[in-house]
Amino acid sequence: MDEPTLRQLLDDVRSGVLGPDEAVSRLRRLPFADLGFARVDHHRALRQGVGEAVYAPGKTPGHCAGIVEELLAVPGGPVLLTRADPDQVAAALDRSPGGTVTATGVGGGGALVAWRPAPARPARVLVITAGTADLPVATECVAVLEATGFRPLLVADCGVAGVHRLLASLDDLADADAVVVVAGMEGALASLVGGITGAPVVAVPTSTGYGAAFEGVTALLAMLASCAAGLTVVGIDNGFGAACAVARMLP
Amino acid sequence: MDEPTLRQLLDDVRSGVLGPDEAVSRLRRLPFADLGFARVDHHRALRQGVGEAVYAPGKTPGHCAGIVEELLAVPGGPVLLTRADPDQVAAALDRSPGGTVTATGVGGGGALVAWRPAPARPARVLVITAGTADLPVATECVAVLEATGFRPLLVADCGVAGVHRLLASLDDLADADAVVVVAGMEGALASLVGGITGAPVVAVPTSTGYGAAFEGVTALLAMLASCAAGLTVVGIDNGFGAACAVARMLP
Amino acid sequence: MDEPTLRQLLDDVRSGVLGPDEAVSRLRRLPFADLGFARVDHHRALRQGVGEAVYAPGKTPGHCAGIVEELLAVPGGPVLLTRADPDQVAAALDRSPGGTVTATGVGGGGALVAWRPAPARPARVLVITAGTADLPVATECVAVLEATGFRPLLVADCGVAGVHRLLASLDDLADADAVVVVAGMEGALASLVGGITGAPVVAVPTSTGYGAAFEGVTALLAMLASCAAGLTVVGIDNGFGAACAVARMLP
Amino acid sequence: MDEPTLRQLLDDVRSGVLGPDEAVSRLRRLPFADLGFARVDHHRALRQGVGEAVYAPGKTPGHCAGIVEELLAVPGGPVLLTRADPDQVAAALDRSPGGTVTATGVGGGGALVAWRPAPARPARVLVITAGTADLPVATECVAVLEATGFRPLLVADCGVAGVHRLLASLDDLADADAVVVVAGMEGALASLVGGITGAPVVAVPTSTGYGAAFEGVTALLAMLASCAAGLTVVGIDNGFGAACAVARMLP
Amino acid sequence: MDEPTLRQLLDDVRSGVLGPDEAVSRLRRLPFADLGFARVDHHRALRQGVGEAVYAPGKTPGHCAGIVEELLAVPGGPVLLTRADPDQVAAALDRSPGGTVTATGVGGGGALVAWRPAPARPARVLVITAGTADLPVATECVAVLEATGFRPLLVADCGVAGVHRLLASLDDLADADAVVVVAGMEGALASLVGGITGAPVVAVPTSTGYGAAFEGVTALLAMLASCAAGLTVVGIDNGFGAACAVARMLP
Amino acid sequence: MDEPTLRQLLDDVRSGVLGPDEAVSRLRRLPFADLGFARVDHHRALRQGVGEAVYAPGKTPGHCAGIVEELLAVPGGPVLLTRADPDQVAAALDRSPGGTVTATGVGGGGALVAWRPAPARPARVLVITAGTADLPVATECVAVLEATGFRPLLVADCGVAGVHRLLASLDDLADADAVVVVAGMEGALASLVGGITGAPVVAVPTSTGYGAAFEGVTALLAMLASCAAGLTVVGIDNGFGAACAVARMLP
Amino acid sequence: MDEPTLRQLLDDVRSGVLGPDEAVSRLRRLPFADLGFARVDHHRALRQGVGEAVYAPGKTPGHCAGIVEELLAVPGGPVLLTRADPDQVAAALDRSPGGTVTATGVGGGGALVAWRPAPARPARVLVITAGTADLPVATECVAVLEATGFRPLLVADCGVAGVHRLLASLDDLADADAVVVVAGMEGALASLVGGITGAPVVAVPTSTGYGAAFEGVTALLAMLASCAAGLTVVGIDNGFGAACAVARMLP
Amino acid sequence: MDEPTLRQLLDDVRSGVLGPDEAVSRLRRLPFADLGFARVDHHRALRQGVGEAVYAPGKTPGHCAGIVEELLAVPGGPVLLTRADPDQVAAALDRSPGGTVTATGVGGGGALVAWRPAPARPARVLVITAGTADLPVATECVAVLEATGFRPLLVADCGVAGVHRLLASLDDLADADAVVVVAGMEGALASLVGGITGAPVVAVPTSTGYGAAFEGVTALLAMLASCAAGLTVVGIDNGFGAACAVARMLP
Repeated sequence: MDEPTLRQLLDDVRSGVLGPDEAVSRLRRLPFADLGFARVDHHRALRQGVGEAVYAPGKTPGHCAGIVEELLAVPGGPVLLTRADPDQVAAALDRSPGGTVTATGVGGGGALVAWRPAPARPARVLVITAGTADLPVATECVAVLEATGFRPLLVADCGVAGVHRLLASLDDLADADAVVVVAGMEGALASLVGGITGAPVVAVPTSTGYGAAFEGVTALLAMLASCAAGLTVVGIDNGFGAACAVARMLP
Repeated sequence: MDEPTLRQLLDDVRSGVLGPDEAVSRLRRLPFADLGFARVDHHRALRQGVGEAVYAPGKTPGHCAGIVEELLAVPGGPVLLTRADPDQVAAALDRSPGGTVTATGVGGGGALVAWRPAPARPARVLVITAGTADLPVATECVAVLEATGFRPLLVADCGVAGVHRLLASLDDLADADAVVVVAGMEGALASLVGGITGAPVVAVPTSTGYGAAFEGVTALLAMLASCAAGLTVVGIDNGFGAACAVARMLP
Repeated sequence: MDEPTLRQLLDDVRSGVLGPDEAVSRLRRLPFADLGFARVDHHRALRQGVGEAVYAPGKTPGHCAGIVEELLAVPGGPVLLTRADPDQVAAALDRSPGGTVTATGVGGGGALVAWRPAPARPARVLVITAGTADLPVATECVAVLEATGFRPLLVADCGVAGVHRLLASLDDLADADAVVVVAGMEGALASLVGGITGAPVVAVPTSTGYGAAFEGVTALLAMLASCAAGLTVVGIDNGFGAACAVARMLP
Repeated sequence: MDEPTLRQLLDDVRSGVLGPDEAVSRLRRLPFADLGFARVDHHRALRQGVGEAVYAPGKTPGHCAGIVEELLAVPGGPVLLTRADPDQVAAALDRSPGGTVTATGVGGGGALVAWRPAPARPARVLVITAGTADLPVATECVAVLEATGFRPLLVADCGVAGVHRLLASLDDLADADAVVVVAGMEGALASLVGGITGAPVVAVPTSTGYGAAFEGVTALLAMLASCAAGLTVVGIDNGFGAACAVARMLP
Repeated sequence: MDEPTLRQLLDDVRSGVLGPDEAVSRLRRLPFADLGFARVDHHRALRQGVGEAVYAPGKTPGHCAGIVEELLAVPGGPVLLTRADPDQVAAALDRSPGGTVTATGVGGGGALVAWRPAPARPARVLVITAGTADLPVATECVAVLEATGFRPLLVADCGVAGVHRLLASLDDLADADAVVVVAGMEGALASLVGGITGAPVVAVPTSTGYGAAFEGVTALLAMLASCAAGLTVVGIDNGFGAACAVARMLP
Repeated sequence: MDEPTLRQLLDDVRSGVLGPDEAVSRLRRLPFADLGFARVDHHRALRQGVGEAVYAPGKTPGHCAGIVEELLAVPGGPVLLTRADPDQVAAALDRSPGGTVTATGVGGGGALVAWRPAPARPARVLVITAGTADLPVATECVAVLEATGFRPLLVADCGVAGVHRLLASLDDLADADAVVVVAGMEGALASLVGGITGAPVVAVPTSTGYGAAFEGVTALLAMLASCAAGLTVVGIDNGFGAACAVARMLP
Repeated sequence: MDEPTLRQLLDDVRSGVLGPDEAVSRLRRLPFADLGFARVDHHRALRQGVGEAVYAPGKTPGHCAGIVEELLAVPGGPVLLTRADPDQVAAALDRSPGGTVTATGVGGGGALVAWRPAPARPARVLVITAGTADLPVATECVAVLEATGFRPLLVADCGVAGVHRLLASLDDLADADAVVVVAGMEGALASLVGGITGAPVVAVPTSTGYGAAFEGVTALLAMLASCAAGLTVVGIDNGFGAACAVARMLP
Repeated sequence: MDEPTLRQLLDDVRSGVLGPDEAVSRLRRLPFADLGFARVDHHRALRQGVGEAVYAPGKTPGHCAGIVEELLAVPGGPVLLTRADPDQVAAALDRSPGGTVTATGVGGGGALVAWRPAPARPARVLVITAGTADLPVATECVAVLEATGFRPLLVADCGVAGVHRLLASLDDLADADAVVVVAGMEGALASLVGGITGAPVVAVPTSTGYGAAFEGVTALLAMLASCAAGLTVVGIDNGFGAACAVARMLP
């Protein structure tokens, strides 16, 4: 029930069309369902936030296409289809043309499609990866940031072997309003960056590496236990979540 | 906001005291908060269910006493204070006399206090333990069941060493409307009981034993992986939860 | 040894055909083997319960077909073949026509076949999933519930993103005699539903999601540690078990 | 080496006091050590950030007192002594009077002492706990936020049992510039809050609860796997870290 | 129901005192409960096996004393009270004098009391420990072996640092009919012994050591994954179980 | 250095051909290498034990064939090639004809080849599985037992669903000199069998099942924590190890 | 910024071309980035160390080829491409001919390519494996050692079954300046070797084996908990890391 | 059997006092036991290595004193008593005066006593800790290094907060022949140091910190997965092991 409907109900009460008992009965039901969350949605819209995302794995191409179409039918912010395989991408674009496809290679499917990108946001976001193997997760993060209006800067391969690139980007780091660190293995880059910048740092552990990297668990734990105060962490390989976190933090 | 308040609001709209805009504004807020859950609470009351429970560990005696008093101020079902130490028990009984104290010895504190027990329920509940070391958890389960109106039968020490007691209780097992199995170590008793009875079986892994019992994790996993179809499981040492589960299942 | 055989033995004792020593010897053996469990089976039959289920993975098509045929040879309740691949399904139906096939897509094989469904049961069962990726597990659960006589209502995709569907189903939730919540990721839907309804809630963690979902372990732990009192849990992806649990709980 | 020293060195080069070879030799060493990080420190100062924190456990009272004194000797932001026991608190205050003591009860020691609080910051921060057992961690978080200039609002006990308090605080939630959710057990409150607000949400898993709560691991995993997009997480019981994360995010 | 009772029942059938229907009814019940397991017990008695053991932790002194007394009331093999504290030992000996007390220091309580030891068995059992810290577990193992009739040889401290003692005992090792290896840390001694002797080897991981010993988990896993073919393993610190395993293997 | 060589050396010393210094030098080296372990091998031979086994996975067909050939070149007990794929089997049989091939289906490769089986041993060994999915592991166990001279009896599918087969085999169980229990899921069958028989019981957890079976970890832990005293356990899916353990135990 | 540039800057200061302010500004930036680490690199060069390694998995062939080419463009030590698949190998060799290819079979890709091997180093390194299944990891280790100038000796298959090979190599072991032990399963070989030699021992756990080997975790834990004092450990399957560790230790 | 005994045996053979058969018989036994390992011990002595260490926890004071006395009775290298409590220290010094006591505070007991320190070794060893809480482990490491002849340099508190101390020690780092990094939490300091120095780096994870530090597991995993090539790791809190590792590496 949206506001016009609610206003109509109240008008009907005022005009006597609807009795108080019936109105109470209707009202007891609906607000939880609709008004409460409409308010939330409105709030979202005001912030020009993340919008809606459809996680493709496990859905049929038709399913993906249908949900995307439905979401685009309502005016609003960006709509994303994440980790989609070629068939899912094709089906969704067929029904809803105009989406931007980014090949990420993350999570099997490997593509993110974005419709109706948000208006540009001026804040500067830096996405840094420890190795080239972290690029798929970082690429998804960048694509989601772009869909939400940012123009993030991606600096890859800044681990111990390539730390000079991080240093070469010290100005960018100093200027960043938020930093996303994408790292697997022991994830030490997050602590390093967290110690250098005072901006918010979102750490994304990745499942790269082998053996004692334990599919990202080692990086995850290390980031959570980081001695760099105020680092926050999202789930393994969750570049999408990191982008959403940044979208919450910055205007 | 309860129904009278809502009705008053609608009356005010009808009488013109309140304009639609202001009414919409108020209504957008409240229902999520009050009406939606009042309905739920009402539903609870109709079922004469578990009531409210206060988990004592980490609360001051005064805190415990205050919350219990507050809960008893509103008419309703049973009010429980769980895993309370002597000071917490004393403080709560001082402010709210009449509670029934059961020494369980579980979770440090070791006592459960119950006020305002539910009316008697006829269903037969059997609580079985594998060993005497499982008795604290089982005792808490029994006390909660009693507070919710049941008269459960407790049969202890039915593991491999004492399985004859289980067999001696085959009639009780056959007659039970629900069975709670409390077992540590490898938790095999749950599978055994689950294979014998067709009644609902709630398995409670306990942290008894040592070494490879891994503080209840072994029993927990074994119960979850049980080949006895339709067994359900609650958390380690959660006799309280098992009693609540039974209270949900039975009239 | 069934009852007629036992009666014959006793008649033979009475008529002197069999000496007490020999009778004692025979009796010491048999009851454990046959009578004790025959009693159990009888009990099962009285409840028109779950019947027998054959877990297909790791068995040859011929194996599956043979066991199903054998089970159907004895009068009784429903017979299920779970997680069967196309060859197993074909072989079983070839030998035992008349089974109902449900494509679930769960567990590799992906089909459940049910023979001799139980008579209709009036109780209302609601199966709710957090996401569409949980549908295979939920579908298996629904198919097993149907084979055991229920007409469950399936409400999909009620996670945070689609919670309005849950709210739209508040009446169904209020009316349900039992609810099965199927959820992966952090499994929070189970706590939410457990807090709303007073009916028994069986939570099924699923292995959907990636990274920190840890193949269902996260949802499993979260459901076990849920602060919604009286929630019970079955193993990861065990929609079959959840259906059996419901069949134990409801008439 | 600070800027004056550097400028002197260059002057010496220009005046011929110092030869290029010697200057190169000196410069090759120092900047890594001093200039690079002085820059970082300066950056910190500009942001009026978290300042310096001393983790008390494992340090002698004298040790604590000495480090605090040393940190206060240099002009700058707030100085914190965390998880200090009474002896550590007394020793530190004796040497450095004027600190504000907050009894948190977290981590054994149980007190946080703050000197030289930061100037007031206008942003609104909400700290929400699922249960009263989460209060020690939340209290530490609040104290750190206060030391860094915020006036956070603490809303306790908003889990399933007390969710009406969260709802009663919907306005505060809507107005918050950042939200810290402190929850143990299954940590579902974080997902719930993350779905309601578009503001940044920092989730702090706590080690409250027993059994399947696994000392905070369950809440940690659930928060990391949350389906509420853009939630970020800090380590178990790390209320300090959550406060620092907020201090990074907000002006 | 023991054999005389059964024989009486059959006599009553033969004499017409008991009708077949009633006899069937009685027989359907009892054998599962009594005869089936009486048979097992008889089997046990024939082997003069392990007898009955009471695990003391979590039981009151009176509880311990009562169970021991009850077990000794029935003729049979050895009766053991394991991991008993001084009060439990005293109470049990007070009610049932004549038990042999062995101070083991394992599992808190630290004493094993044995009544009615089994007749001597000639087989040679060797109990080897890797370090002196493994002695409590080994001592319990030795005491249980002695109660079951063996005269085991204990060779302590044969880890890498003291492997010369193992070598000095090569003859004993060559002559042993069974070997129990008690080792913590990385448990490599089990593999070494398993490679030297062809006799059955039972490995007992202990929770000695610190850090990466992970309370016995490392030794447990290492023993299970041992490349010495035919090694078998019992639970962590389970010297009692290892003794029982040997008692099963040897005449 | 074998005995003839050693004797020659001593003869050379006696005859003066070899000086004491040189002899000491040679002797300091060799015994560790050869004599010590020759003694072990001799010991093995005396027991007509397990012989030598080649684990095929990760080896080339040529590699497998070569090692087997080498082992058969020395007189002795059985030689086994385990978990071999068809190419490995073919290559080995080509170079060393006469091996007995058993298709087990375990571990990818799926075949066990045995050469030079040991003379028949009279002891009775029972191999019991909980489900048909445990058959590959059990089949490997049986094949190894046969190669070492036993004529084991295999009883399959004795879990809860098929426990009547176990009961039908009670005589075989009572007569067995050793029992191997092969079970996945929650592994409760091992506890059950351990409680019925006084013979040695070797439990083999298998990686069958899904979800909370955790690839055999659940069964492994449950077997280690079993309340049936004296149960011993081998590694997950290690039917080979269980057979070797039995070969150590029985004459 | 290299030394000439720095010297030029200082010359410009001396000559007045550059003002102190501008010079300070430039200097504050650069040293962290360039000089600090140039110093480190120089240090590396002096030691003729490991050089640079490119981890191939997750990189395109072109990516691999480009990075290798870039690294070779700068004079220096060896350049390695690790775990490369055929396409990656071909692309890299096409752009940078002259690399030595070693088929290791480790990590999917299976080849290590080395360019510009270091001058010969005289130290003796022994690489020992417990089984043939450990050879891929050991082979990678050997190839890296060779690229860094060593001529390591590889002794394979020295586990319990083949310990005579280790003993046959006692002289080599006694002469080794460093030993790398590569072992899966329970990893006991590392403890054994660590107890025999006083040279540095680097243990590499491998993911060989099945079941309770837990993909190398068991060997890893056992090596970390080894009672052989002074053993050090690298990550699972990390033969590359072990070789680098040796290169750090030896001249 | 030492060399004189062996020589006597050979003399007896030569003189005819001992027949070849008897000599063979004696020789088959002894060398494994005595000569083989005597050789190892000799090797140790030549290297003036770690000597012998007695791990005090779990031993009685008398036990500790006796073993130390026994070890000192044989000429050789240093003898250490580790993690001893005051009673153990007193007893050992009473029987064997002259030991140097270092209060470490690690592992409960908290003291290391060293007798008969090794001659001075010139190599430079640097021990670096991330925080002051890592000092107990580092202190034990330093004391063991000193007992083995080194004069290590301890630099404490070089984590992110105090990294300037590491930088202030860059010269020491550059000059070190080996570095021990002692760090808890996320252990990133090891990666950082490993990237700066080309010397061997031994990383010691410590159990400091709380929550997601998981008692040292996080640091352990991070160090094992470090992207700094050639880092090696010892067990959690194993400062003793790290010192021994260094003693193996350096002359």
